[in-house]
Amino acid sequence: MQVAIPLYPGYTALDVMGPYQVFAETPGTEVVFCAEQAERLYDDHKMFHLDIEHTFAEVPRPDVLVVPGGFIDPRSGPCKVAAEGGPILQWIRAAHEHTTFTASVCTGALLLGAAGLLEGLRATTHWAAYDDLRGFGAEPTAQRVVFQGRIVTGAGVSAGIDLALAVVAELHGSEMAQAVQLAIEYDPDPPFDSGAPSKAPAAIRELVLTGAEARRREPD
Amino acid sequence: MQVAIPLYPGYTALDVMGPYQVFAETPGTEVVFCAEQAERLYDDHKMFHLDIEHTFAEVPRPDVLVVPGGFIDPRSGPCKVAAEGGPILQWIRAAHEHTTFTASVCTGALLLGAAGLLEGLRATTHWAAYDDLRGFGAEPTAQRVVFQGRIVTGAGVSAGIDLALAVVAELHGSEMAQAVQLAIEYDPDPPFDSGAPSKAPAAIRELVLTGAEARRREPD
Repeated sequence: MQVAIPLYPGYTALDVMGPYQVFAETPGTEVVFCAEQAERLYDDHKMFHLDIEHTFAEVPRPDVLVVPGGFIDPRSGPCKVAAEGGPILQWIRAAHEHTTFTASVCTGALLLGAAGLLEGLRATTHWAAYDDLRGFGAEPTAQRVVFQGRIVTGAGVSAGIDLALAVVAELHGSEMAQAVQLAIEYDPDPPFDSGAPSKAPAAIRELVLTGAEARRREPD
Repeated sequence: MQVAIPLYPGYTALDVMGPYQVFAETPGTEVVFCAEQAERLYDDHKMFHLDIEHTFAEVPRPDVLVVPGGFIDPRSGPCKVAAEGGPILQWIRAAHEHTTFTASVCTGALLLGAAGLLEGLRATTHWAAYDDLRGFGAEPTAQRVVFQGRIVTGAGVSAGIDLALAVVAELHGSEMAQAVQLAIEYDPDPPFDSGAPSKAPAAIRELVLTGAEARRREPD
């Protein structure tokens, strides 16, 4: 079983690494990072990088496809890729023809949308990107993981862990998924109940949005 | 504010990347990966690597230290490092003299233990490593995140997210930690209630332990 994670400059690291860990813990699963070229790709904080060793052409038929998101900025990351198109969208479309599940984490949903896969479907993404998702004909929902047939979308960043466990349960049964969950001791106990916009105080939500706005105004 | 994550061969990727993401989202925070040498270090599944660019000598005074764990195997990873000692333990001891918080995720606690930092303290680690932790004079506890003064230990793998958010709250206040939690949409919704050994059915626990035993018998 091969799980492919397509990368582009400006992905969010945990969008990638949550699903990576879940699938890597699942026996008989190979996780492959791939991109347009075999090159070094930095995350959206530029403090982490992946050295991609496989081009899209080398990974033509993954069983599972997980598209990570990245910081919401028209100048870079998933918004730029979704707007400009290019090889990653072509590869997503072609690979999707044969996948068992095609998934996204966070604003990775914008790439599925730009590839034309979300038209008329319920889907989720990072809570700050619901409007962008609507632009691709999807119906945004605040659910953490949304299955629509073999297309699966997850909410922001950390939701990739929940999403990957749900996909493992579909692929290998609930016993295997429970075992992976126990192996990574995923018994979450967040210090606050502020992880969703419906739960966080308005001031905290404002703090995140103004912080993001400031980050978008930083020089490249 | 500098957060240092010391690496060694055979770390668990999510032990590293959960805290990475939380600290990277915290304004004014630099996250630095460091190791004995500037070299490529693979994780315990060998499907992911980090290219380390900073040696321990280059990161002498981090404000926060987060030691990741790895698969429990006497032949490799944290158990081997804890047993054999070496530069990483010397660096942990020296860096700890000046840190605001010294933390571990999962079996990273064994390295804190081997560095002599857990003697007589309550601490946690991956649930399958409580006995190993006891060997370093610590009192293992099933709490997800354990503060003992400025030493903080977290449970297995995914607990690094909870731990890092708790440390951000201590360092920068609860508003900042809540904002980071909302930014990474950490409103977990695991598909099963099987993430802790006290909650998982005995058969699932057995599945994890026999899987680990099989993995330890694989050729290097």
